[in-house]
Amino acid sequence: MAKVQPRTLSGFMELLPPRQIQFDRMMEIIRRSFSLYGFTPLDTPLIEASEVLLAKGGGETEKQIYRFTKGDSDLSLRFDLTVPLAKYVSLNYAKLAFPFRRFQIGKVYRGERAQRGRFREFYQADIDVIGDGQLDISNDAEIPAIIYRTFTSLGLNRFQIRVNNRKVLNGFYAMLGLTAQAGAIMRTVDKLEKIGEKSVRELLTAPDIGLTDEQAAEILKFIAIKGRNAGVLAALEGYRGRDPKFDEGLDELSAVAKNLTAFGVPETHFVLDLTIARGLDYYTGTVYETAMLDHPEIGSICSGGRYDNLAEYYTDKQLPGVGISIGLTRLFFVLEDQGYLNDDLNTAPADVLILPMTGDMGPAIQLATYLRDRSLQVQIYGEQKKFKQKMSYADKLGVPYVVLLGEDEIKQGKYALKDMRSGEQKLLATEEVFREISTHAGAGGGAKPILDKGE
Amino acid sequence: MAKVQPRTLSGFMELLPPRQIQFDRMMEIIRRSFSLYGFTPLDTPLIEASEVLLAKGGGETEKQIYRFTKGDSDLSLRFDLTVPLAKYVSLNYAKLAFPFRRFQIGKVYRGERAQRGRFREFYQADIDVIGDGQLDISNDAEIPAIIYRTFTSLGLNRFQIRVNNRKVLNGFYAMLGLTAQAGAIMRTVDKLEKIGEKSVRELLTAPDIGLTDEQAAEILKFIAIKGRNAGVLAALEGYRGRDPKFDEGLDELSAVAKNLTAFGVPETHFVLDLTIARGLDYYTGTVYETAMLDHPEIGSICSGGRYDNLAEYYTDKQLPGVGISIGLTRLFFVLEDQGYLNDDLNTAPADVLILPMTGDMGPAIQLATYLRDRSLQVQIYGEQKKFKQKMSYADKLGVPYVVLLGEDEIKQGKYALKDMRSGEQKLLATEEVFREISTHAGAGGGAKPILDKGE
Repeated sequence: MAKVQPRTLSGFMELLPPRQIQFDRMMEIIRRSFSLYGFTPLDTPLIEASEVLLAKGGGETEKQIYRFTKGDSDLSLRFDLTVPLAKYVSLNYAKLAFPFRRFQIGKVYRGERAQRGRFREFYQADIDVIGDGQLDISNDAEIPAIIYRTFTSLGLNRFQIRVNNRKVLNGFYAMLGLTAQAGAIMRTVDKLEKIGEKSVRELLTAPDIGLTDEQAAEILKFIAIKGRNAGVLAALEGYRGRDPKFDEGLDELSAVAKNLTAFGVPETHFVLDLTIARGLDYYTGTVYETAMLDHPEIGSICSGGRYDNLAEYYTDKQLPGVGISIGLTRLFFVLEDQGYLNDDLNTAPADVLILPMTGDMGPAIQLATYLRDRSLQVQIYGEQKKFKQKMSYADKLGVPYVVLLGEDEIKQGKYALKDMRSGEQKLLATEEVFREISTHAGAGGGAKPILDKGE
Repeated sequence: MAKVQPRTLSGFMELLPPRQIQFDRMMEIIRRSFSLYGFTPLDTPLIEASEVLLAKGGGETEKQIYRFTKGDSDLSLRFDLTVPLAKYVSLNYAKLAFPFRRFQIGKVYRGERAQRGRFREFYQADIDVIGDGQLDISNDAEIPAIIYRTFTSLGLNRFQIRVNNRKVLNGFYAMLGLTAQAGAIMRTVDKLEKIGEKSVRELLTAPDIGLTDEQAAEILKFIAIKGRNAGVLAALEGYRGRDPKFDEGLDELSAVAKNLTAFGVPETHFVLDLTIARGLDYYTGTVYETAMLDHPEIGSICSGGRYDNLAEYYTDKQLPGVGISIGLTRLFFVLEDQGYLNDDLNTAPADVLILPMTGDMGPAIQLATYLRDRSLQVQIYGEQKKFKQKMSYADKLGVPYVVLLGEDEIKQGKYALKDMRSGEQKLLATEEVFREISTHAGAGGGAKPILDKGE
């Protein structure tokens, strides 16, 4: 028969079993972490009517969208989880309780240029809190706490959540009479880390933006405000009273910073950073980015912010919200690439492999059923192979335990349990097998999927 | 601003939060149940190259496929999880340990005619065991045990796994010299329950198939073999020695039935049924169907079988396998439709809602952090609303507990914990709040998502 060459499309992540188990464990930890904060899971379709999905229209994203027709329907694959959320909330408005807190972990699609570490199909893990008409600032304060718990639960330590407020920025530019140029200025200032202060100053005073030297100096002085959060807030207080938007933003930023300790987030992992701007036409208040401290080149691994109106394309209801998103597939790629994945994690599909040595499968099945009833993962190896091949299979799977079940053992009603790490072998009764495995096999399973050598 | 009418495509299931939580709990139980048997999770892309996905080509399915181009790529959405598995195993053959046991729970796409209870996007939950060259029959015996555990763990009781073997059927038809007509006969016999014995006899003897009255009688006598499994096997033994394929099939069927008790599957839930044929050109040995006893009209809710060669379109390797698939979205629809979903399941997004009654969020955050550190799901209600509105929000979410946190409580360092079911309110210290909630809130969370009134 003529064969078709099997392949997986480029830009689509497909993992081997041990890595898949690590990925799934990360997803599970994220899911559990989000759930602790009272978010409800959603699962919206991958496909939406193009008219609905692209209601906002235009923009860079549209070119990347997977769009096609089926019958006479014009369909598109979702490119993020925010537009489906806007649709869902508009559609089910009367049936939801507000604030509506939802998380969604799902695949999204963007036809990006193929390139190492860029994915066309990738998981996003999003949380959003949507208010009906209004939404208290305390929600903005909780988001960094959720991300802090999520990342530390995964085993990541050397990261920093950076927070700013768009009203502070816009208010500041209004003070200088530069509201019209604010967008261009922020895009330029955003390059500070990459191109340095001198180049930023040149761009700001070049004809395109056209600031005076004094204005450029004011801006550079402002964004140079750094240090501990209390110091940053104090410096910002010096600008109070000159623009109402600025004052409002400063109040919000202070409120977000205030309760961090109560939320259990140390200041090492949360900084006020006036250079963060993000999504210029979408976010309206608090904005978040998250950096890996030892890999700034990777950019933000988790970003989001406050928006005034989630669903203006679908409904007249004013639905303000705040949310954040982890680009999970890219994060996993980066973690593997940088050696952050914990290879001590038990990624075997079973806690124990039972090797029957006689033709009678009965005793093997009885033991397996006993252990499974007690939540252990058990595989019976039923193939007629030589002992060496059976053991080599156990090695290949990486199972922590093997049970050998020959005639002697069956006669005695016992099991030979071999610890594959130590090589030690013991003759045990059923309950002892359970006790031994459940005490020790869990050790790897409970480990964190990320091993961050930093503190 | 002009609005776009938000909508979800027909044939795409999108659930409200309480139902979504029930659906997710079902998925989680299925995932855990599959894992107990040493299956490793896979997650393949939703999109594949059309050339790869449609290597087998033709057939009814092809018309239903979502196929489109992006750039110069001809792409298709997966329509099952078996073809992606065949691709995966061929592609990663050298890196996998055989038998390769994988489960996958994921969405697949078929552009079926829109119709109540038919879905174009739906979850399948599949397990397969793939051998390299050969695969022991004991794997076929384990599949019904996995399905039995899975369904009973979900809370479903009144179901029956029906098992047959294609070799027994093919061997039987060979005995009668009817191998050429076997396909047509089996398709006809398959209608027995629907159209009755008389109509089946008429169809068998009509010119299209053209059997003699004696042949038709032989066939009807054969498929009428029913009753307890030991009796069915004994009746089949009466045909032994007349066709080697039949004898092989009978040995396999006996082996599958033999270890059921050890696997913990009662005979009420597992029957040998000679009328089951399934996927005429794909399955080659054991075949499975699963019926809901009180709703035979629904058809099989979980089906599968043994196949000789998983990946012949991709590789020369002989890869026999056995697997089974739950059509999860349709099953969920049917369960809801027939009133099987357990509405006592706690589907609130949080175990407790904390209502701060003063401007100071600190104590609320401290309590929330303490409880979350101990794995309770906690939401803080931070909106500035009247007490009545706060309580109405708690009712709407359906949270089992509310903490009221006013000045008095803060002064005493205590919390007023209200049990929303009994209405009872207690003034408690932090640890007492935790103990009270963790003892009682879990009750609903631990319940089974399906409530099957049958035994």
